Amino acid sequence: MGAPRPSDMPGPGQDVVQRLRAVRQQTRELAAGLSDADATVQSMPDASPAKWHLAHTTWFFEEMVLAAQGSPYRPFDPRYGYLFNSYYESLGARHARPERGLLTRPTLAEVNSYRDHVDAALQELLAHTDDAKLRGLVELGCHHEQQHQELLLTDILNLFAKNPLHPAYAGLRRTLPSVVPHYPSTFTRFEGGVVEIGHRGLQFAFDCETPRHQELLPAYWLANRCVTNREWLDFMADGGYSKPLLWLSDGWGEVQRQGWTMPLYWWEDSGAHFSMTLHGAQPLELDAPVTHVSYFEADAFCTWAGKRLPTESEWEAAAQREPCQGNFADSGMLRAVAAAGVGSGPQQLFGDVWEWTRSAFSAYPGFRASTGAVGEYNGKFMSGQMVLRGGSCVTPAGHIRASYRNFFRPDARWQFSGLRLAEDA
Amino acid sequence: MGAPRPSDMPGPGQDVVQRLRAVRQQTRELAAGLSDADATVQSMPDASPAKWHLAHTTWFFEEMVLAAQGSPYRPFDPRYGYLFNSYYESLGARHARPERGLLTRPTLAEVNSYRDHVDAALQELLAHTDDAKLRGLVELGCHHEQQHQELLLTDILNLFAKNPLHPAYAGLRRTLPSVVPHYPSTFTRFEGGVVEIGHRGLQFAFDCETPRHQELLPAYWLANRCVTNREWLDFMADGGYSKPLLWLSDGWGEVQRQGWTMPLYWWEDSGAHFSMTLHGAQPLELDAPVTHVSYFEADAFCTWAGKRLPTESEWEAAAQREPCQGNFADSGMLRAVAAAGVGSGPQQLFGDVWEWTRSAFSAYPGFRASTGAVGEYNGKFMSGQMVLRGGSCVTPAGHIRASYRNFFRPDARWQFSGLRLAEDA
Amino acid sequence: MGAPRPSDMPGPGQDVVQRLRAVRQQTRELAAGLSDADATVQSMPDASPAKWHLAHTTWFFEEMVLAAQGSPYRPFDPRYGYLFNSYYESLGARHARPERGLLTRPTLAEVNSYRDHVDAALQELLAHTDDAKLRGLVELGCHHEQQHQELLLTDILNLFAKNPLHPAYAGLRRTLPSVVPHYPSTFTRFEGGVVEIGHRGLQFAFDCETPRHQELLPAYWLANRCVTNREWLDFMADGGYSKPLLWLSDGWGEVQRQGWTMPLYWWEDSGAHFSMTLHGAQPLELDAPVTHVSYFEADAFCTWAGKRLPTESEWEAAAQREPCQGNFADSGMLRAVAAAGVGSGPQQLFGDVWEWTRSAFSAYPGFRASTGAVGEYNGKFMSGQMVLRGGSCVTPAGHIRASYRNFFRPDARWQFSGLRLAEDA
Amino acid sequence: MGAPRPSDMPGPGQDVVQRLRAVRQQTRELAAGLSDADATVQSMPDASPAKWHLAHTTWFFEEMVLAAQGSPYRPFDPRYGYLFNSYYESLGARHARPERGLLTRPTLAEVNSYRDHVDAALQELLAHTDDAKLRGLVELGCHHEQQHQELLLTDILNLFAKNPLHPAYAGLRRTLPSVVPHYPSTFTRFEGGVVEIGHRGLQFAFDCETPRHQELLPAYWLANRCVTNREWLDFMADGGYSKPLLWLSDGWGEVQRQGWTMPLYWWEDSGAHFSMTLHGAQPLELDAPVTHVSYFEADAFCTWAGKRLPTESEWEAAAQREPCQGNFADSGMLRAVAAAGVGSGPQQLFGDVWEWTRSAFSAYPGFRASTGAVGEYNGKFMSGQMVLRGGSCVTPAGHIRASYRNFFRPDARWQFSGLRLAEDA
Repeated sequence: MGAPRPSDMPGPGQDVVQRLRAVRQQTRELAAGLSDADATVQSMPDASPAKWHLAHTTWFFEEMVLAAQGSPYRPFDPRYGYLFNSYYESLGARHARPERGLLTRPTLAEVNSYRDHVDAALQELLAHTDDAKLRGLVELGCHHEQQHQELLLTDILNLFAKNPLHPAYAGLRRTLPSVVPHYPSTFTRFEGGVVEIGHRGLQFAFDCETPRHQELLPAYWLANRCVTNREWLDFMADGGYSKPLLWLSDGWGEVQRQGWTMPLYWWEDSGAHFSMTLHGAQPLELDAPVTHVSYFEADAFCTWAGKRLPTESEWEAAAQREPCQGNFADSGMLRAVAAAGVGSGPQQLFGDVWEWTRSAFSAYPGFRASTGAVGEYNGKFMSGQMVLRGGSCVTPAGHIRASYRNFFRPDARWQFSGLRLAEDA
Repeated sequence: MGAPRPSDMPGPGQDVVQRLRAVRQQTRELAAGLSDADATVQSMPDASPAKWHLAHTTWFFEEMVLAAQGSPYRPFDPRYGYLFNSYYESLGARHARPERGLLTRPTLAEVNSYRDHVDAALQELLAHTDDAKLRGLVELGCHHEQQHQELLLTDILNLFAKNPLHPAYAGLRRTLPSVVPHYPSTFTRFEGGVVEIGHRGLQFAFDCETPRHQELLPAYWLANRCVTNREWLDFMADGGYSKPLLWLSDGWGEVQRQGWTMPLYWWEDSGAHFSMTLHGAQPLELDAPVTHVSYFEADAFCTWAGKRLPTESEWEAAAQREPCQGNFADSGMLRAVAAAGVGSGPQQLFGDVWEWTRSAFSAYPGFRASTGAVGEYNGKFMSGQMVLRGGSCVTPAGHIRASYRNFFRPDARWQFSGLRLAEDA
Repeated sequence: MGAPRPSDMPGPGQDVVQRLRAVRQQTRELAAGLSDADATVQSMPDASPAKWHLAHTTWFFEEMVLAAQGSPYRPFDPRYGYLFNSYYESLGARHARPERGLLTRPTLAEVNSYRDHVDAALQELLAHTDDAKLRGLVELGCHHEQQHQELLLTDILNLFAKNPLHPAYAGLRRTLPSVVPHYPSTFTRFEGGVVEIGHRGLQFAFDCETPRHQELLPAYWLANRCVTNREWLDFMADGGYSKPLLWLSDGWGEVQRQGWTMPLYWWEDSGAHFSMTLHGAQPLELDAPVTHVSYFEADAFCTWAGKRLPTESEWEAAAQREPCQGNFADSGMLRAVAAAGVGSGPQQLFGDVWEWTRSAFSAYPGFRASTGAVGEYNGKFMSGQMVLRGGSCVTPAGHIRASYRNFFRPDARWQFSGLRLAEDA
Repeated sequence: MGAPRPSDMPGPGQDVVQRLRAVRQQTRELAAGLSDADATVQSMPDASPAKWHLAHTTWFFEEMVLAAQGSPYRPFDPRYGYLFNSYYESLGARHARPERGLLTRPTLAEVNSYRDHVDAALQELLAHTDDAKLRGLVELGCHHEQQHQELLLTDILNLFAKNPLHPAYAGLRRTLPSVVPHYPSTFTRFEGGVVEIGHRGLQFAFDCETPRHQELLPAYWLANRCVTNREWLDFMADGGYSKPLLWLSDGWGEVQRQGWTMPLYWWEDSGAHFSMTLHGAQPLELDAPVTHVSYFEADAFCTWAGKRLPTESEWEAAAQREPCQGNFADSGMLRAVAAAGVGSGPQQLFGDVWEWTRSAFSAYPGFRASTGAVGEYNGKFMSGQMVLRGGSCVTPAGHIRASYRNFFRPDARWQFSGLRLAEDA
């Protein structure tokens, strides 16, 4: 089944027309192995059908770029605006989110025709304009679509994980090494002081990454790799899920309400642990980073370990010194893997798993949301969410950067979310 | 799209082998026009996906007939028992009902292969046996499958009704007459006395229709046709949905909780009323029987009209004198139509719409549930359900009879349920 | 604490003025031992505070008798109509049922003043009128108040049962006999045939007990006493609460949802069973009738025992031959006790525990609800409820008769509800 | 009814024995005018009964001070630990929070005896020890009890507001001035830079106020008074509650789910606005600070006004220069009142209303929770809560300081919560 290939991925420096074509093609390939039914069903209100991701990203271009031009663009189907608006209050009424999975029509084939229609109109439009604002919106649409590429994968995994047959989205790309070396967790010291945080430069970034500003950080330690499945099993064996004093009050509430005893997608059979992956059911890789844990679990693990999560500023101050490389979706592995050997300084900051930070998602000093509909992109989610950093094994490579702020509710587990330990110096 | 054709329908007197083949083929045809996605999605916990109906009816034969033989039958897939058991506690664990729509795998094609596999094994088995008990179970399986044929249609309608695009399951088979005569509602008097109620004879019947027994009925009047959409509009215009004194206490609770103001699938646009049907959105046919009303609505209508619903015995005492003919699924119309002219005595007792009675579903005097798994068929539902009689426009013709007892909760509206007025003599 | 005394209870033949005075006094005494807080708190939406019962029964007289007279009656407080209407849609808006326990004001003392005010006005009115309709409404008000006397006791028990301190409403009136004889369950045969069911004569009865009518009953057996706690322990020991095939489908749903493993108010400690009673926590009396079981549990027990519940007509046909005597609230025991020795024929038909029947609460042939507000009394509850017969140890003696139909939902357990076995002849 | 009097309030410099006596006495007086029922009922799961506050604060001393001494202390009732533990997982099982209102026993009188018993034991213990740790725990217990004094008042208001009779907790202490001057909102500029935040010195503070640390703040403006009811009416008149673009996504969800159209406790009658207060129903005072608004409402108001909420550091940097004076509970007014005239710089920072900040409640750099049970006090609530600053008209005067961090969920409205505008410089 079609996992992303590196050569398809445009770098941030490419022309926007090329980039648009590459990103749109990439999404199509991600869905290539899905049946009409796979692409239609919604596994939970938080997740969306693949077909919806394919259509919504297309609607985004139609609404934000084509419809905004006053050009003679003819909508593919005037009813699609209602069906495929996600949450833009300024763009009219929309289909209820928990009912996205009821839309067996339009079919997957019709949605692909919709994509063709909009792609053609976009290429036509871009061939005849140099308008910077318009190109900026196309750039935004590409980044928006890359976000949905990742969600398409996390949502398909959630759907397949709820199927007792455990279907695989993709075959394993590489033979697993028979022995993965186990590296102990070591820490690097950072001196803190006045650091600059936030997006810098002319490349694309979301509004919430700005403005770049100074913060004053005390000195701190950061672990050189992510917490592993092996370490998580130690936490479980030590009663991690049954000791309320390790947990935030709301976290302990979730443990009891949802009956958590291990990360999402894990199960035990005859003493061995398995997990549901994009390759179907697999035995647990002990030295791979733990993933599909909530903020609450990450926080409890830290308390158990006598450490803490880093703040997002601590993470970014460390990461902005490093090249933005790692195990992204483009590797085709589509799973988190063990750190390749821990040298000097933090590894795995980018890729493998999103890293929970202890920072609530909020506005940087001086933040102003963009105006118009794109202003609904980030600012309105600034309550109840925690920041994650660094991208994961299902994030497109060209999409991530050191200043990138992802955010989810503290009980969310269906993303490829893990953690790295930190400590006061 | 494939609606049922009369010639396919086996009569009750046919040989069980022929009957089996015809019923199984019929189900396949009912699903022929559905896409993989249409057949997979579950629109609400009360409804099931078409694919599930296709597989569950097959599992019923596999489990009740093939597996019970001690024969060398090889199950198509040993995991299907878990997926496609509906509610038989005696037959092991099963997939949760509200999650039936998550099974994008097995695909529709795989389910059809499952049907082929089981059909072949059944034909092979029946070719070499005269065992009466086994043939009885096959007969039961055919009736069970016919029930699911009806549910497949009601559930697809529910799914398509939740799609803002209003897709049609089937084209309109007949041109609607430009003028439908409007017949006034008249009543026929029945003298009551000691009447015999329940199934008689050697033909198939469900256990809950037995034993045939005597009841003592006072004299009563029964309307000669069902209540029509035109009459229902009068009820609405007179404030039927806003006067609590017309309603049962629980019914008024539902009105307020669910915001009912008209039957399910109706809406108003610029003063005209429309409804979602198996032929997509259609203007309301004023003289057709009202359908998709709950027991609570039917009861409130009767109170408003100064009448009452009949008991199931009153209905059966009248119906057992009449031929079991009417507008069933086999007509291909797939919608309730106006009574063909009201002569002497009750019309439309069979077909068009299921008729709510005022009788709670309970055991007849001397009732004994069947033994074994088939004993879970009816008896365990004898609380909280009201009886409906007579079949509907989506009931297979060979499936219904005067003693047939259907039952649903008093708030259910997604079946083709309507009503007929009665009155004390 | 003030339990009812026999001498206070007016018989049905007494003059209505005397009867009114006695019933009103009786209610006051039932609440005499309760604190302001005891009388104010609502333990669940199904139950009401004692203070609310005291006020609502008073409001009933104020609204149905005093306000209806066009007399110069001055309401005690015009806001009380809103606070103390229970469910009469025809009598205006009302305070939400689940919020009855929020009314710390008016105080218990103020509610008692309200009672004094209305009592005085009633006595004044009745001293100067012979109007039969008015006396009929007062009679209805007395019976209505007796219903609430019973509810006051069942609701206080529910409240105290939720208090970890297990407070007692009343002291034990009699020493328990050291040895209670254990009588085996025997059965009496009834021949059935055409029997008359329903209220007869000039004494008061609720509208749902009428009209008296004929029914045709097959012959049946009826147990000579109620099912006991000892027998219930056998059911539990045999896995009664863990075998789904014993249960109605909805019943098994409740078992799982609510985690039922024994009757309400029971618990086990070191192998012995206890229950919460109006006398506080008490060891289980093995030969007393089981109580605080739902219809679902009663039905499951019958299935386990190879018997069934009687229909309400079977019960009434047997009970109308017997004197209406038994262990009612007036005995002061306020708990169900072992049958006094089983002679010939059914014992305990009246008093001790309400007996679940297998009959859904519905209209008798020819039933017409009363007109006006009192017509909302019974008819609007004719869905979703099962009939119980015979009264209990907290029912006032003068309130019950053979034709009396009580009704509750099949999952209700907080009434003194038990069962008697029946069988087809 | 007994509102707090200034002379009763111990200052932070008093001896702990005196302070203990004064605080305990103060709580008793706050509850003096409540009936047994008033003190028993729980109006919602977030609120607790007054009797519970009286008992829980007592249990805190019993458990944290008396039981921890190994002294010969005899518990008043060994069952009270289960009843009156709030959320301390380390101190054993406890009564479920939403069922606190079911405890009609122990009575209010018994709880007062419990208070006497513990007070006597505490005085006896403190008379014979100079142990600093123990005196620290008593100090903590006093601050804990002061928190519950405020909650007792906010919870009683919530209870009385749900009573259609609108009872008053206390009479109005002062005549309202006939004309309150209306001061325009002006702003003061703060230069920011490196500021010190957090508790300093030897006086008591909660662990979450520490450690004092440096932060780097950009320059900012802070309004000189709180937002008023008059300004809130402007927001409402301009459609504030019906424009989704003004709201955080979660906030708009609450507006729709709960139907918010004005602050909690407000209603409109014939064009005038009223609110429920501790003095019963009152006409709205236009120039008093708005109160009983959620974080979501406060944030939406700021967006509407083109401003923002301050961060907690911005607030504290301004407040630590000001004397800790204002309209606290000790004024006896028990309502927020108009600023007394806006001179130079921010007024009303302390008292009147808690001020929402845009800061999520989280750990300061270097924060360590206290060890033992008292460590469960703050740290475990560090998710999902927003910080409020400055105290309110129902906060005890000796309880508040510039570094004090209160926190509630962003949808909470039953506290005296308001807001002050801020802006980037």
